[in-house]
Amino acid sequence: MNMEIHTVTVVGAGTLGSRVALQCALSGYRAKVYDLDASILETSKATMQKLLRQLRKQGSLLPAQEEGLSDRLLFTDKLGEAVEDADLINESVTENLETKLQVWKQIDNLAPEKTIFTTNTSFLLPSKIAAAIDRPQRFCALHFHDVFFARLLDIMAHSKTDLALIPILEKFGRSLNQVPVVIQKEYPGYLFNTMLMSFIHAAGKLLTRGVGSIEDIDRSWMVNFHMAIGPFGILDQIGLDTAWHVTRNNPDKYTQAFADLLADYIKEGKLGEKVGAGFYSYPNPRYRDPNFLK
Amino acid sequence: MNMEIHTVTVVGAGTLGSRVALQCALSGYRAKVYDLDASILETSKATMQKLLRQLRKQGSLLPAQEEGLSDRLLFTDKLGEAVEDADLINESVTENLETKLQVWKQIDNLAPEKTIFTTNTSFLLPSKIAAAIDRPQRFCALHFHDVFFARLLDIMAHSKTDLALIPILEKFGRSLNQVPVVIQKEYPGYLFNTMLMSFIHAAGKLLTRGVGSIEDIDRSWMVNFHMAIGPFGILDQIGLDTAWHVTRNNPDKYTQAFADLLADYIKEGKLGEKVGAGFYSYPNPRYRDPNFLK
Repeated sequence: MNMEIHTVTVVGAGTLGSRVALQCALSGYRAKVYDLDASILETSKATMQKLLRQLRKQGSLLPAQEEGLSDRLLFTDKLGEAVEDADLINESVTENLETKLQVWKQIDNLAPEKTIFTTNTSFLLPSKIAAAIDRPQRFCALHFHDVFFARLLDIMAHSKTDLALIPILEKFGRSLNQVPVVIQKEYPGYLFNTMLMSFIHAAGKLLTRGVGSIEDIDRSWMVNFHMAIGPFGILDQIGLDTAWHVTRNNPDKYTQAFADLLADYIKEGKLGEKVGAGFYSYPNPRYRDPNFLK
Repeated sequence: MNMEIHTVTVVGAGTLGSRVALQCALSGYRAKVYDLDASILETSKATMQKLLRQLRKQGSLLPAQEEGLSDRLLFTDKLGEAVEDADLINESVTENLETKLQVWKQIDNLAPEKTIFTTNTSFLLPSKIAAAIDRPQRFCALHFHDVFFARLLDIMAHSKTDLALIPILEKFGRSLNQVPVVIQKEYPGYLFNTMLMSFIHAAGKLLTRGVGSIEDIDRSWMVNFHMAIGPFGILDQIGLDTAWHVTRNNPDKYTQAFADLLADYIKEGKLGEKVGAGFYSYPNPRYRDPNFLK
C-alpha cells in the first residue's frame, strides 16, 4: 500500500483526543479536531495551550515544531468538514459501544475512500465496531496512552483488517514519537492495560482485605521499582470513576469489594487528581513528599 | 521493651542471607553468618566481595562503613556458636516449611532468651513456623527484597507476636537503609510480592494466549512506566525455577499454562540471568539495548 498521511482527524476532543491532535500538529501533520460540542472544542484549545506551556518548560519542544503550529490545527463541530479530506481518523469519543457505533456509521458515510479508520478505545474490541461499518478492512485499533509521558502505542487489528495497514500505522506512530507495539490477536485491554489492571486489582484486594494501608501499598511499589507513583496514585490519575467503570462488572468478589470502595469515594466527590481529591489530596499528595519513602 | 541490637545472626548463607549479613556489618552491627554447608559459607564470602566491589564502583560506600568490616563479619557452620549471643536472628534457609521448621526447632533450643526471631520467608506464613517453637511471641516475619536496590522491608507479625517487637524491627530496618512497611495481617506474599506476582501472572497469560510476544509485553511495561526492565526480564532475575515453584500450585488454568511454559524453559536449562539464559540471553539481553524502546 503506497499511502502517505498528511491530514489526521481526531474525532472527540476530550483529554486524550486533544493530546493526540496536538502531537500530530507538533509532528508536522495537519490535524483536524472534531467534537459535536463547540464548548468542548474551546476546552480542547485551552488544554493544548496548557500542554504547550508544560512542554516548553520541560525543554521538550523544538522551535521548528511550533512554527506554523496554529495553521496546522483546525477545530470544527461539523463532522463532514472534519473527515472530508482525512488520510487517517483516530476516534476518541466516550468509552461506550453504542456511542462509538453511532459515530462510526456517520464517519463511514462521510469519509473518502482513502481514509484509514482507527479507534482509540481502551477496552472495547475493534471487531465490534468494524461489524457496523461498510469497510471493516480499513478499520484498526490505534490506542495511545498519554502521548507525552507514556509513549506506548497499541496497534490491534481485528480479523478483517487489511494487514497492509499495520506497517503504515507503525511508521505513523514512530513519527509521533510513540513506541508502537503490534498486538497479535484481539484482546480487551491490549498488553499494558491488562497488566496495569491486574496489579491494580491486587492492590485493591490488599486494601479491602485489610492487609495494608493505601500509603504502605503505594510505598512498597515505589521503593522496590524506583517509581514516583504507586497503584493508588495511579488510580487518582486514571480517575476513580473510570476505574469503577472498569471494575464494577468483574465477577471476582474481591474486585467487587474494591468497586464498592471506589463507589464510596465517588459518592463523596473524590474522583481523583482532576478534582483535587481521591485516595490522596492534591496538589500536594503525600506520596510526592520526599519523606514518603523513609 | 528496652532492647538494643548489637549482634545479628543470619541463618542460611544463600544470595539473600549474604546480602542481609553484609548490610548489617556495613551498618555497624556484628554479623554472624551460619550455614550447615561450609562450602556455601565460602561462596557467601565471595558473593560479599563481589557486592562490595559493585558498591564501591557505584560510590555508595562510605569509608567508615568499610572500616573494621571484616572484624564485624563472622562465618560459622556451628549453629550453637552462631546463635549463642544473637540479639536478632534472620533466617533465610530454603523456602520449604519442613526445612524451616527443623531449623527453627534447633534455634529455639540453642538461642538465649533475649533473641528476637525473624524469618525472611517470601510466601510462607510466620504463624506456621511460630506454632512449632516454644516462644512464638518472639517470632515475626522480617522480609528483605534485595537489600541494595530494592530496599523495601516487610514486617509481618502473626497473632501471637509480641507487638512491642514491631517498633524495634522498624528502627532496625531503617538503620539498614531499608524502608519498613508493617503488614496489617498475615498474608502470603506481603504487599509487594502480591502485586508483583499479579502482574507477572497477567504477563504470562498474555504470552501463553498468544496476545503478545515476550519482547512486546516487556516493551509495553517499560515504555509507559519508564522502567529499565519488564515482567520477563524480572522473571529472569527472580529465576524461572523459583517462579515455577510459586506458580505451579495455582489452580487458575492460565497460570498452569504459564507454569508449563516455565517448565519447558527449565528443562532446557534456561533458569534465568544466573545461568546466562532464560527468556533473554545474558550478559546482553535485548531489553537492555538502547534501541529496544524504539
